[in-house]
Amino acid sequence: MKLLRFGNKGAEKPAVLHDDGTIRDVSSLVADFTPETLSPALARILASAEIGSLPEVPSSVRIGAPISRIGHFIAIGLNYADHAAESGLPVPSEPVVFSKAPSSLSGPYDDVMLPKESQKSDWEVELAVIIGERCDYVEEKDALSHVFGYAVCNDVSEREYQAERGGQWVKGKSAPTFGPLGPWLVTTDEIPDPQNLDMFLDINGERRQTGTTKTMIFTVAHIVSYLSQFMVLEPGDVITTGTPPGVGLGMKPPVYLKAGDEMRLGIAGLGEQHQRVVAR
Amino acid sequence: MKLLRFGNKGAEKPAVLHDDGTIRDVSSLVADFTPETLSPALARILASAEIGSLPEVPSSVRIGAPISRIGHFIAIGLNYADHAAESGLPVPSEPVVFSKAPSSLSGPYDDVMLPKESQKSDWEVELAVIIGERCDYVEEKDALSHVFGYAVCNDVSEREYQAERGGQWVKGKSAPTFGPLGPWLVTTDEIPDPQNLDMFLDINGERRQTGTTKTMIFTVAHIVSYLSQFMVLEPGDVITTGTPPGVGLGMKPPVYLKAGDEMRLGIAGLGEQHQRVVAR
Repeated sequence: MKLLRFGNKGAEKPAVLHDDGTIRDVSSLVADFTPETLSPALARILASAEIGSLPEVPSSVRIGAPISRIGHFIAIGLNYADHAAESGLPVPSEPVVFSKAPSSLSGPYDDVMLPKESQKSDWEVELAVIIGERCDYVEEKDALSHVFGYAVCNDVSEREYQAERGGQWVKGKSAPTFGPLGPWLVTTDEIPDPQNLDMFLDINGERRQTGTTKTMIFTVAHIVSYLSQFMVLEPGDVITTGTPPGVGLGMKPPVYLKAGDEMRLGIAGLGEQHQRVVAR
Repeated sequence: MKLLRFGNKGAEKPAVLHDDGTIRDVSSLVADFTPETLSPALARILASAEIGSLPEVPSSVRIGAPISRIGHFIAIGLNYADHAAESGLPVPSEPVVFSKAPSSLSGPYDDVMLPKESQKSDWEVELAVIIGERCDYVEEKDALSHVFGYAVCNDVSEREYQAERGGQWVKGKSAPTFGPLGPWLVTTDEIPDPQNLDMFLDINGERRQTGTTKTMIFTVAHIVSYLSQFMVLEPGDVITTGTPPGVGLGMKPPVYLKAGDEMRLGIAGLGEQHQRVVAR
């Protein structure tokens, strides 16, 4: 099932993408998709509903992020060996973990705003994992049963803020609109193998990133299990799992985002995003 | 005004500490203290209420963290020059920023659980700042007007996870119970100068940390303004602002927490916490 949210920013309503391609308003079944409502029980309610009989949403409506608030917005760094190499950093021996501000969350087609005077804003197509059940020392073999679903994430990054402003990457990962998520939150039944998904990202129509989750260093199951040894993961936490090669930082010379650029990115089965880059 | 929350973990109700020292239930005025309800309007409602006429809460009740969920739990590292020195790290030229998992939030008197096999868990008394209004490129002169209040925070830290497990401090700062906050959220009218507050922390009755917010490298106003250039701060975000010298890592040889230890810590005007350390 593909969950999404529609309407103006901050006033979105929950919906499901119906089999015939129409968007159906499910606000009669659940008030919103939030950390409080995401659960296996919600998935069952939606799976048993007659989606086709629910109100149709005009296709012209704005699509928001598929969850209203993120609990902890966690990100994994350098999770593809080729991307570590292009960043000039060693392949990590265990997952590199950092956070994005929850206020960076953005809709899949919303403009991405460059921070004032930003010179080094960059793109990163990533597979995001949305937690559905509490994880506290979860074993790897049980980890995927705690996942609610998956989504496309653009882990937009300001490289100067990330690496040249006194350590700790959160500074370069957290600007408003730096966390486009969606268009859909796709439940796990539709993604039987999260380690076999093709992904891409284009800038102004030119292919920049081509990858597959097959080449992740640490799998989704490993990441969920690993994180749960350091912190409790809660429903509504989002883990974005790292990017394949082809970011602007890795080009020779590096190329960064500028106002007017168009990004398009997608992952097989999870849909596509597109964003226009704008100045503040 | 001193806001607090009482009741079992996950089912707390909001209260105010009355002038006569009794705790008064304010759940008839506000459902809970959350990122959604913290606002200047809430402060006005509570300030104009007849607190003494509201139901008294038995003093034996458990006290929880003074806010139900944290949006972004932000922490500043190495913000006292002496603490940077004892950690063997240079005094930062601009604030070091990292995140704690929101699931680390804990009550001021709740047990602190050592992670399984943890060898290097440590204490850190800190002044926490609770945001009341959205901050987006806020100037330093306006920053304090966006603060809702202050609280004591114990920024409990696992030093091996923080520094020896592949970079990015969030790994060592995020275990469940590693974020005791409270007992009170003290509104800004009671703390006219956040840069003149004495603070202390005792382990098993021995003084380990003695400090004052006078010696912060970066003031609260600077931190709020600085952060707002990298991310939007939202109501309910908590910023814990760094610790003075005297942590276990800085002792020669280092001394870390073990099951059975008792921590007591406080900041002038913000009350005291105490926690027992337990194994998992």
